[in-house]
Amino acid sequence: MRFEVLGHDSRTRARRGRLHLAHGVVETPVFMPVGTQATVKGMTVEQLQSLSVQILLCNSYHLMLRPGSETIARLGGLHGFMKWDRPILTDSGGYQVFSLNKFRKVTEDGVTFQSHLDGTAYALTPENSMDLQVALGADIIMPLDDCLAYPATPEAAAQSMRRSMNWASRCQRRFRELAPAGQDLFGIVQGGVYPELRRESAERLIEIEFPGYAIGGLAVGEPNPEMYDVIEQLEPSLPGDKPRYLMGVGTPEDLVECVARGVDMFDCVMPTRHARNGWLFTADGHIVIKHAEYKDDARPIDERCSCPVCQRHSRAYLRHLFMAGEILASVLNTVHNLYFYLDTMDRIRQFIEFRRFDELLAQVRNRQIRRG
Amino acid sequence: MRFEVLGHDSRTRARRGRLHLAHGVVETPVFMPVGTQATVKGMTVEQLQSLSVQILLCNSYHLMLRPGSETIARLGGLHGFMKWDRPILTDSGGYQVFSLNKFRKVTEDGVTFQSHLDGTAYALTPENSMDLQVALGADIIMPLDDCLAYPATPEAAAQSMRRSMNWASRCQRRFRELAPAGQDLFGIVQGGVYPELRRESAERLIEIEFPGYAIGGLAVGEPNPEMYDVIEQLEPSLPGDKPRYLMGVGTPEDLVECVARGVDMFDCVMPTRHARNGWLFTADGHIVIKHAEYKDDARPIDERCSCPVCQRHSRAYLRHLFMAGEILASVLNTVHNLYFYLDTMDRIRQFIEFRRFDELLAQVRNRQIRRG
Repeated sequence: MRFEVLGHDSRTRARRGRLHLAHGVVETPVFMPVGTQATVKGMTVEQLQSLSVQILLCNSYHLMLRPGSETIARLGGLHGFMKWDRPILTDSGGYQVFSLNKFRKVTEDGVTFQSHLDGTAYALTPENSMDLQVALGADIIMPLDDCLAYPATPEAAAQSMRRSMNWASRCQRRFRELAPAGQDLFGIVQGGVYPELRRESAERLIEIEFPGYAIGGLAVGEPNPEMYDVIEQLEPSLPGDKPRYLMGVGTPEDLVECVARGVDMFDCVMPTRHARNGWLFTADGHIVIKHAEYKDDARPIDERCSCPVCQRHSRAYLRHLFMAGEILASVLNTVHNLYFYLDTMDRIRQFIEFRRFDELLAQVRNRQIRRG
Repeated sequence: MRFEVLGHDSRTRARRGRLHLAHGVVETPVFMPVGTQATVKGMTVEQLQSLSVQILLCNSYHLMLRPGSETIARLGGLHGFMKWDRPILTDSGGYQVFSLNKFRKVTEDGVTFQSHLDGTAYALTPENSMDLQVALGADIIMPLDDCLAYPATPEAAAQSMRRSMNWASRCQRRFRELAPAGQDLFGIVQGGVYPELRRESAERLIEIEFPGYAIGGLAVGEPNPEMYDVIEQLEPSLPGDKPRYLMGVGTPEDLVECVARGVDMFDCVMPTRHARNGWLFTADGHIVIKHAEYKDDARPIDERCSCPVCQRHSRAYLRHLFMAGEILASVLNTVHNLYFYLDTMDRIRQFIEFRRFDELLAQVRNRQIRRG
């Protein structure tokens, strides 16, 4: 893996970069759509390609349970299994263990849990999370970490962070033993909303040494300004020549705000999940397509949008599909929302290139204020 | 509307034709995918176009209830609403009233029923079924008819058929009053499995005069050979220069058998509904994708199939998507099954053109025997 910083914005910490991975080049800042079960829900590979998706995120937890890493490895890893030839990132599965499992048990060694599908017992350790992700074969893989609930006391946050750092070190060791070709392991900064802990976490990870650093444990319920502050205070502790990945974030406004604070990579289920619930992003905010006001509305979702759905379909038709529970509602809404997110990232990259990113930031903030 | 018979097969009654409709030319024999609620479930317009779908069938009953014909008319009729610019055929809604409604009441005037969605009371008469379908704006529309349950006595079949013929005459009168541009009304032959009644029905319709003749009331539970016999005996009573449309049929084998008996047009939910249930057509029969034997199967659904799904994806991946309940399972399975049906029709047309349709028929029959 190689990361180039192509340029910096003059008035913010935004930066324009290029990530060279085994399956291709990724222009940053980048948004990674989520393909939980080896598919971005409702999207064909052709649709993802025509949306210019650069890199996908897949969830190890779901794939470990079904169809299992052996099946995926036999079919040529995630790339061969999904027939997606561009880069992929996998998470460690830890986050889903914490969010989907009531009967998990965490020790210093790792975490044991029962499948949310059928109750089968599983154990995830730093070591076998590497084995799992090496079998899946994504370009970027993530270490197992301890996921802290919000709010947490400084003591709980410190203990959890230090456990995650020990696990990160064990992950790195196992990863180096396996020495897989074409894969890279990132570190994940933890420490809750406590700047001192975040700094300590970053220092520990830099000591272990990773080719990229993720920021984990945010967007878990804390107010947005608090999240922005954590990132802002953490940024100077992160190496300038390595990519930074903010996990699980966020709204289109979050993307702009966090790019301004030096983040290069994002993933979030919001555009795809909201699409399936009929919540559609527009330049003026969002529309909820089921609302009666759209029944006879011949306009597209967003008159300024160039996506294939807005080029063809009316709100009236999309509302009908949604009300009728049609599969096509999920498909078309997902195409539009993903286009909106990817187009937002495209504009972010362009504004940074033109050294005018602060203008985009001001636009976004003014719009937020206008909308209250 | 204009129908050309381009040629006949020498040993069967199969014929190759061309239907000129307001929204384009349709090469016959043709299969019409079903777009019940103004969408072929899971398919974008682009996907339908790339599958070379020539003409779609939409269900008036479903569209009348939701979103309602006024909404569709305001958005430019079905073509404007769906943004499908090729031909469309609508049914009258009668069949769904009979199959989806327990509390319907049929009189000589028409049928009253309650919406299966919310219980709202509706009345469908020959006259307002024309008003409804003229508002929807399909190229070909169908008269309201009385749908007979199978089995039925000759007396019940005769009474039902005569009622349908009276309704057909009233539909024709109303249709001529409305005189919509770019639309044509077909007649529907009824009469159950009784050749005499079918002949009487055909004579009545020819007297009223329609530009095309449908065969209704088949594939409702009668054994296949009985269906084939009814068509075979009816065929000489139908005008040779008008298209014949067999409603709601059938399996790939049915298509070949019925083309051999002079049918030009078909519609059926089988390829699309079976797709969503994981039943996939192949040249050797079908596969049920959820079966455990496909868990690690790297082969496509059908090694001889040129569809975009077989060109890219493995059975293992398709099985995973199906087991995980992913939307993409329905999408990809539908693409494959529709391709299979449309390709079957393509081959049917080619074999007729080469005056070798009897060879295709023999192939299909041998395969049926081999499979038992």
